[in-house]
Amino acid sequence: MTTEATTPDELWRNPHAPVDERVRDLIARMTVQEKIAQLQGIWAGIDAAGEMAPHQHEFAVAPQDFDELTRHGIGQLTRVFGTRPIAPEVGARTLARTQRQIVEASRFGIPAVVHEECLTGLAAWQATVYPSPLCWGATFEPDLVRRMAAKFGDAMRRLGVHQGLAPVLDVTRDLRWGRVEETIGEDPHLVGTIGAAYVAGLESAGVVSTLKHFAGYSSSRAGRNHAPVSIGPREFADVILPPFEMALRAGARSVMNSYADNDGLPAAADPSLLTGRLREEYGFTGTVVADYFSVAFLHKLHGVAADREDAATQALSAGIDVELPTVDCFGEPLLEGLHRDRVDIALVDRALTRVLTQKFELGLLDPGYSPAPQSNVDLDDAESRALAREVAERSIVLLHNDGVLPLSGKRLAVVGPRADDAGAMMGCYSFPLHVGVHHPDAEMGIEVATVLEALREDHDVVFARGCPVLGGTDEEIAEAVETARQADVCVVVLGDQAGLFGKGTSGEGCDAADLTLPGRQEELLEAVLDTGMPVVLVLLSGRPYDLSRQADRLAAIVCGFYPGEEGASALAGVLGGRVNPSGRLPVSFPGAGSSQPSTYLTPQLAARTEVSTVDPTPLFPFGHGLSYAPATWVTVGSEEREWPTDGTCRVHVVVRNDMDVPTAEVVQIYLHDPVAEVARPVRQLIGAVKVDLAAGQTRTVTAELHADLTSYTGRAGRRQVDPGDVELHIGTSSATIHTSLRLTLTGPRREVGFDRTMTPVFTTNP
Amino acid sequence: MTTEATTPDELWRNPHAPVDERVRDLIARMTVQEKIAQLQGIWAGIDAAGEMAPHQHEFAVAPQDFDELTRHGIGQLTRVFGTRPIAPEVGARTLARTQRQIVEASRFGIPAVVHEECLTGLAAWQATVYPSPLCWGATFEPDLVRRMAAKFGDAMRRLGVHQGLAPVLDVTRDLRWGRVEETIGEDPHLVGTIGAAYVAGLESAGVVSTLKHFAGYSSSRAGRNHAPVSIGPREFADVILPPFEMALRAGARSVMNSYADNDGLPAAADPSLLTGRLREEYGFTGTVVADYFSVAFLHKLHGVAADREDAATQALSAGIDVELPTVDCFGEPLLEGLHRDRVDIALVDRALTRVLTQKFELGLLDPGYSPAPQSNVDLDDAESRALAREVAERSIVLLHNDGVLPLSGKRLAVVGPRADDAGAMMGCYSFPLHVGVHHPDAEMGIEVATVLEALREDHDVVFARGCPVLGGTDEEIAEAVETARQADVCVVVLGDQAGLFGKGTSGEGCDAADLTLPGRQEELLEAVLDTGMPVVLVLLSGRPYDLSRQADRLAAIVCGFYPGEEGASALAGVLGGRVNPSGRLPVSFPGAGSSQPSTYLTPQLAARTEVSTVDPTPLFPFGHGLSYAPATWVTVGSEEREWPTDGTCRVHVVVRNDMDVPTAEVVQIYLHDPVAEVARPVRQLIGAVKVDLAAGQTRTVTAELHADLTSYTGRAGRRQVDPGDVELHIGTSSATIHTSLRLTLTGPRREVGFDRTMTPVFTTNP
Repeated sequence: MTTEATTPDELWRNPHAPVDERVRDLIARMTVQEKIAQLQGIWAGIDAAGEMAPHQHEFAVAPQDFDELTRHGIGQLTRVFGTRPIAPEVGARTLARTQRQIVEASRFGIPAVVHEECLTGLAAWQATVYPSPLCWGATFEPDLVRRMAAKFGDAMRRLGVHQGLAPVLDVTRDLRWGRVEETIGEDPHLVGTIGAAYVAGLESAGVVSTLKHFAGYSSSRAGRNHAPVSIGPREFADVILPPFEMALRAGARSVMNSYADNDGLPAAADPSLLTGRLREEYGFTGTVVADYFSVAFLHKLHGVAADREDAATQALSAGIDVELPTVDCFGEPLLEGLHRDRVDIALVDRALTRVLTQKFELGLLDPGYSPAPQSNVDLDDAESRALAREVAERSIVLLHNDGVLPLSGKRLAVVGPRADDAGAMMGCYSFPLHVGVHHPDAEMGIEVATVLEALREDHDVVFARGCPVLGGTDEEIAEAVETARQADVCVVVLGDQAGLFGKGTSGEGCDAADLTLPGRQEELLEAVLDTGMPVVLVLLSGRPYDLSRQADRLAAIVCGFYPGEEGASALAGVLGGRVNPSGRLPVSFPGAGSSQPSTYLTPQLAARTEVSTVDPTPLFPFGHGLSYAPATWVTVGSEEREWPTDGTCRVHVVVRNDMDVPTAEVVQIYLHDPVAEVARPVRQLIGAVKVDLAAGQTRTVTAELHADLTSYTGRAGRRQVDPGDVELHIGTSSATIHTSLRLTLTGPRREVGFDRTMTPVFTTNP
Repeated sequence: MTTEATTPDELWRNPHAPVDERVRDLIARMTVQEKIAQLQGIWAGIDAAGEMAPHQHEFAVAPQDFDELTRHGIGQLTRVFGTRPIAPEVGARTLARTQRQIVEASRFGIPAVVHEECLTGLAAWQATVYPSPLCWGATFEPDLVRRMAAKFGDAMRRLGVHQGLAPVLDVTRDLRWGRVEETIGEDPHLVGTIGAAYVAGLESAGVVSTLKHFAGYSSSRAGRNHAPVSIGPREFADVILPPFEMALRAGARSVMNSYADNDGLPAAADPSLLTGRLREEYGFTGTVVADYFSVAFLHKLHGVAADREDAATQALSAGIDVELPTVDCFGEPLLEGLHRDRVDIALVDRALTRVLTQKFELGLLDPGYSPAPQSNVDLDDAESRALAREVAERSIVLLHNDGVLPLSGKRLAVVGPRADDAGAMMGCYSFPLHVGVHHPDAEMGIEVATVLEALREDHDVVFARGCPVLGGTDEEIAEAVETARQADVCVVVLGDQAGLFGKGTSGEGCDAADLTLPGRQEELLEAVLDTGMPVVLVLLSGRPYDLSRQADRLAAIVCGFYPGEEGASALAGVLGGRVNPSGRLPVSFPGAGSSQPSTYLTPQLAARTEVSTVDPTPLFPFGHGLSYAPATWVTVGSEEREWPTDGTCRVHVVVRNDMDVPTAEVVQIYLHDPVAEVARPVRQLIGAVKVDLAAGQTRTVTAELHADLTSYTGRAGRRQVDPGDVELHIGTSSATIHTSLRLTLTGPRREVGFDRTMTPVFTTNP
């Protein structure tokens, strides 16, 4: 525990010295080239021969020799596993060899941080594909999401991956946006609660989680990828930022910028956001990594930088520490700027300090560091699959049921383009679809059952696809109708083909012009409905679609979003009754003739239906979800009538299961603030908890609510808690309120900041 | 010219004294009740018996005795002519009698300011209905619009109306918004140029013009009336505010607030907008009047005021001077607040000073003032009708023509719900439709021909409606197809039924969920196209609709928006060739699969088509319009290569008419700024001029462009002119550029403010 054994010129090598001193010492020894090398990534995937090779991309410098790129060291290795189907053990071995090369090639022997995508589990071949983020939101179970992230985080660490580029904390603002499927939902409290749990899980495994996209991306104009974000500072503070605040408090060690410009200024060049908010206000000390190519975009696409050096300087000044995925602006252009004294080396040292501090903290510079991989890494073991199934089962939302579900002893017809396609179970950031962009014929590498296969296990099934996701013929639709007529009930499985950049109907760059089901799927649904037989719709999609024209005539509607590799079994479980559905919608389903962008967080004037011919009422509201055994609400109450502006109030909800099967209820607490300095939402979620109830069981949920939960950004632009009356609307969805409690906040107005209480404390008895 | 003849206690009565002294003197004599009475309107329409009577509305106090309401005086009379069909001379007589009553009933004998709607001419019975604002934009002729406003302003003044609630200067941001039809277009420069001309015309007639809606309304979420406006401060400054600045400089003496909340704060309660921007930055000294009921909305619908007194106080503090349409919050509630010392009388005096100053300036308090009306007021004389026709003829946009137009000697079929309906010619703020809300059976009071009637004058015509604007039957569509088959060419007239609050497909509160033609009109169009005959589409609508599915198959497309009472003749003139079309689109027509909100003012990243499956390319771009005799562009050039940041550059365009009929070209100058502090539009209009060309004529247009035209709001939030390279893209639409000139702005960066140069100087030779 002393440093005396180390000579002063090797202080940085001393694992017992304080990290900040080690970092300072190391930086003092580095050349400018060695410094900026640590601020760069290289996209060096593993090729078919199992060798590490630079990956080409139009927005990056031409691929060079790997040794040449790393001879001064390198900050990050990009998507080693994510570029093509590589067996995990081959990948881990190649990665370890590469790390040794990097260590040996440069003066200080600093290993690279290795990052990967991990939105629905590690995005690598043969790794478990977990349900997508909308499913996490639908569980309303942060602890389950925490366990899930901890599980795959552990696998990532064992492979040699240090950093995961997740979670996505963008709050859905426009259902047309292709990346809605990557979000947790439309409510900042839910996104923050679930997102923070994900962060806690991943970080507990020793993996750096990366919050993205900081911030504003989901508000792109008309939900179009990369379109400008027009948003006022109050909405930004009250809707967009809270999930990031919550996740930072959960221990996230990295942040990635949004691509979009906010009111003209791209996030990657915005010091008020990346430094003011993040460092000065939130006290963040981790790294800020650039979303892929976004530094170059400042010059090439945003037109706010004159050249690549200018782009590098602006990004670095704003607070981007590492350029990803690969070196471009932070390479030669930045070096040139430094040589010509146009760039202050202090900016480089600031970023470098953060990068090296993280490397020290990860133990990469400890004397005994070895990149040796674990052998026999099974990325899809039974435990992972069980967890994937648990998340799926707890997330499926029963939107509508006239009694046809659960199915029993009936002959089933299964129809629809998503019924017999394993790809229907996953989103665009799941490896099989993500890598499919480059390797369309690659095998998935994991077992993924389809809904059809899962239903066949318990039912007598006839099947006809009816149409593909896009396109199709009259004949195929007619054939599906004929097939359906042979059965008692028809299960129609519709939805999206997730993909990237035009390769799908949902996913990054796959935005929708409207919310009509893609292709001829609505036509197929109508054709089956025309038979008059009971029709159950199963929706597997990256976003809610407009079901308003059919909802009345459907016997049941089940929403799975992308439920992952065990999703088919979970869906069959719900349809057959083995699983009692307990998911609740994290996003509203649009009503007839409604329009986008839209959110349930609507102020009262905008919620009025008489002011416009466009009715904003959703078909299925945020928080909605049915059960086969609905809980009975016994009482809702609070002893308090006064609520100190710096204190808590307690609310009790007693729920009982009068049925003979286990069930679960999601108790949802919404705030209604009748008079405030600014127009506030009619209702906004401030707490929710899922309560499991055994058959016949009665349980009491107590929520301890801090007055900070009522805070909002007032006219002065600061977050405040106001004295005065508020109402708590407690119920089973944002539109189904069981009880409204009126409370009076007492005491002085308080300003609150990053350290405010952001979640209630729930206790459930027994 | 001296004040000595007047005793000091009657200074305010002295017409020779300075107005500010008269106002001060008068205010010092007034009771609190007399003061606040001047800040109120009463909605006192003329009833069927020709008597003035308070008008009932759900958001106002119950109607009281007129004398009771005015016994302390009254600030404004609301819509005396606009409530029901009243002959102008009866209205003028009743109004004069009422003004005498008001003068006689109170201590100081202060007449009311009388205001009316006048968006498309005075909104009164038997008054000319001029083309709607999108038509004004389409003319690209500010001088024509100035003459139009001066003409009906003169009639208003003669009737006893002092103030007109127009123009609407909201910049269209979302084509779904119902009030798009009231705007001049989607470009702030065009809206400001045409809007300023309207103001100059109306004010030249001695009528106070009222700029609305200050500011932000058109950016309501999803284009839904009253939905919240989420907008950043730079976009607000560079897109929303410039038309108001230009119109204030043209002499507008009143401003009306926007209903919507901007980032949570309703405009009616926003002192930074109504006082900071308007008074302190722009130096405005006129009156700010409340949009109807918007003070009450602060309490009743926005939830930012605790009660009506709070609403009154906030509105008054923010800078609302007069509550309209009728007394509510500014009455008893405000009085109560003053009596209990919760409201500072200085706020009342501030508003009162502005109100009385305007009344003095209008001459209402001059000794000889008499409200005696002119007899025999003809609101629709031949000169007005000629002007209405001129605007219509100059505004019609020929979007597409395969050569079928002009029609000659062909048998015509005329089809469509807008073909034989005079209401198709006008928008929701034109009297016949506006008042139709209350009096659906009232006669129009003016002669308005339909397209069918106008075409019958020169052609052999068969007609079938095909379907109504909304609804319809298969039989009627089939009948229309059969009728069409009898002719050589089919003219299909489609579009909107303008209306208010759910009574139309366009208009205030009549927002669209998407841009599909209303009802079964697209189906009718397809049915007629299926005949294979040449089909000419005439669109009479309040917004562009999606014509992308039919555009390729249509022989021609003519867009009239709402061309007013002489519109049918103008349209027939274009179709038949008597009128050579010269209108240009003030709003883009959406492309296939595009989405809203959208604007041609798109930054370069968002204009890329590869980043999203949603293609933003318009079907017909902003500025587009064809002619029967396209002008030949001879040369475009500039002597300068350098452009001082505080100076001008000159650009020359030589155009020639090689045809044997007169024609007109609209020379459009767009700015492209490749590198700036913030992402700027790919192109933005900075100047445009319509050039008339006789057969064979060659003319040279010279534009003197001040560098202020390149200014924008930079990162520091101030408007600036940057040194560096810019390009001028000069052409015939925002997507059809003839020549790009690269110029270098030289000299220091300059900050510019309200006094900047906002328009080029155009000279045309010979």
